[in-house]
Amino acid sequence: MPSSLNRQFRLRARPSGRIKPSDFQLVETPVPEPAAGEALVRTLYLSLDPTNRIWMSDVEQYMPPVALGEVMRGGGLGEVVASRNPAYEVGDLVTGLVGWQDFLLTDGSGMGALTKLPKGLPIALPSLLGGVGITGITAYFGLLEIGRPEPGETVVVSAAAGATGSVAGQIAKIRGCRVVGIAGGRSKCDWLTQELGFDAAVDYKAPGWQQALAAACPSGVDVDFENVGGEIMDEVLARMNLNGRVALCGMISGYNADEPMRGRFDAILMKRLTVRGFIVIDFAPRFTEAALQLAQWTLEGKLKHRETIVDGLENAPTAINRLFDGDNVGKLLVKVAEPSAR
Amino acid sequence: MPSSLNRQFRLRARPSGRIKPSDFQLVETPVPEPAAGEALVRTLYLSLDPTNRIWMSDVEQYMPPVALGEVMRGGGLGEVVASRNPAYEVGDLVTGLVGWQDFLLTDGSGMGALTKLPKGLPIALPSLLGGVGITGITAYFGLLEIGRPEPGETVVVSAAAGATGSVAGQIAKIRGCRVVGIAGGRSKCDWLTQELGFDAAVDYKAPGWQQALAAACPSGVDVDFENVGGEIMDEVLARMNLNGRVALCGMISGYNADEPMRGRFDAILMKRLTVRGFIVIDFAPRFTEAALQLAQWTLEGKLKHRETIVDGLENAPTAINRLFDGDNVGKLLVKVAEPSAR
Repeated sequence: MPSSLNRQFRLRARPSGRIKPSDFQLVETPVPEPAAGEALVRTLYLSLDPTNRIWMSDVEQYMPPVALGEVMRGGGLGEVVASRNPAYEVGDLVTGLVGWQDFLLTDGSGMGALTKLPKGLPIALPSLLGGVGITGITAYFGLLEIGRPEPGETVVVSAAAGATGSVAGQIAKIRGCRVVGIAGGRSKCDWLTQELGFDAAVDYKAPGWQQALAAACPSGVDVDFENVGGEIMDEVLARMNLNGRVALCGMISGYNADEPMRGRFDAILMKRLTVRGFIVIDFAPRFTEAALQLAQWTLEGKLKHRETIVDGLENAPTAINRLFDGDNVGKLLVKVAEPSAR
Repeated sequence: MPSSLNRQFRLRARPSGRIKPSDFQLVETPVPEPAAGEALVRTLYLSLDPTNRIWMSDVEQYMPPVALGEVMRGGGLGEVVASRNPAYEVGDLVTGLVGWQDFLLTDGSGMGALTKLPKGLPIALPSLLGGVGITGITAYFGLLEIGRPEPGETVVVSAAAGATGSVAGQIAKIRGCRVVGIAGGRSKCDWLTQELGFDAAVDYKAPGWQQALAAACPSGVDVDFENVGGEIMDEVLARMNLNGRVALCGMISGYNADEPMRGRFDAILMKRLTVRGFIVIDFAPRFTEAALQLAQWTLEGKLKHRETIVDGLENAPTAINRLFDGDNVGKLLVKVAEPSAR
């Protein structure tokens, strides 16, 4: 049953560099009542993603930035707790932009659009937000539609132990590629090779990692699933084969910096690469295809998920920095409330 | 009739920065006699191209660099003056990698492959090496296959008064696009708008050119036909529309520099751009299609050519710097000899 207050983190200041708790204002407001056509959603899990940092900055981007004073935008999974909208029933599980708050009031349109989740699926809720949710769908289209790897080709994934990278690499394995992950630290690398089936993993925090990357890619690199940018991307681009493809999913290494993010255009020219930025929203008409395929692979044991779950909405402003510190494995989530309906 | 000596410019040193005459050694050797299967070609016109600078450097590239001591590689147009190869007759006009020399001895294979030109075409020889030749073919495929402009879209061409850019822009006009050229100096810009039909031209040597570019592209930029790189490319990328395309033909601003050529990957990510490097050789099976179309447009008066012709092979080592100084309009050629057969 809903608590009587709705905690909201509103954006107070645009971060300079690292995100600070003082960039947000915590406001406690009464839980709103749905008007006709509206539904009230209780946030169960909040998704923390690198792109949140972009939304906080007033730079040109694929969506409007979050306005100062506005509730911080964030994806998540919630439960409908009250509804005067015929599309939603109390007890429905939904995903969408729930925001950094306990409760979302929505008419189901625009940025308040929600996707209903099937009930009874033998997949844990965190995975429905991660590997089988929007994160996995991002990996699915980015790898298959932008990277277009052929069996036997070498695919390199950066931030490979992260939410998107870990799924992209596993899909590349399913497609018969040689898959090399780049991640920070021995334990992440071990997870990639020993549990997820990556052919090799390169620890970019270890000395000589550039040579390790070269050794792991004896036939060069055909596809780069790029999440990091900066020096790591440079090293991968330097090893691309002719006509290689770069699926530019993100460049987390640059999000806290003030200067524009740059990369080696000489490699694009000399190797005749195709570099393409993408956003999962472009593939919205095919989300169901991807989600079903990801669910099937998960149930078959071909696709494994891991989440780093932080307890309590109040911890969101500090927890998000774990993404930039490389201090999470798999999907980073904040658990906000227990579902009441299951 | 062949002179008795073959002047050859051999690569003596890899240039550091600007090309110097001392980077070459001028050697005079006897004119060779074709053996069985070989043909002897007299160079009539030598093509000077930005990519020549890349060939002189020992960096990873799309062809092997020219070896030290080797005759400098260069495209050109020549006349067969002796032949023991049934594919070539004395008097044939051919294009190919004739090299920086008076005479090429070739068996017609590999890098010595030559393309025979039809005789009697009412198009001047320099144009057959430029706008109707490999340069025009580069513009044709780069614009149409990589840039893929739709009618009404805005196409920006950098180095627009250069050999490739001037053709790319005119093809974009033929396709019904708004075409904006970037070039250095008022007279080049006037040539683009007054003679070639560009909708606007931006003089990047004039103060406030960035604002002029913005004003010339009121609906943003859909296709960038990129020849320059560096700051000019940055400005164009900052104005790209969602799902824009960058046909990365060259980055002449960076060829004399020692550091890698970089560009704004943040624009690729945020605007979901597709950036693709290309080389005309990839389209070799379709060269005839392109050459015929370019010839037809030329004969119809829709495609205009201009050449900057330097007289005398001995001037090639200094003339090539005109490309990097922006001191040429259209195709830069060295006239080496008069044709004997026309």
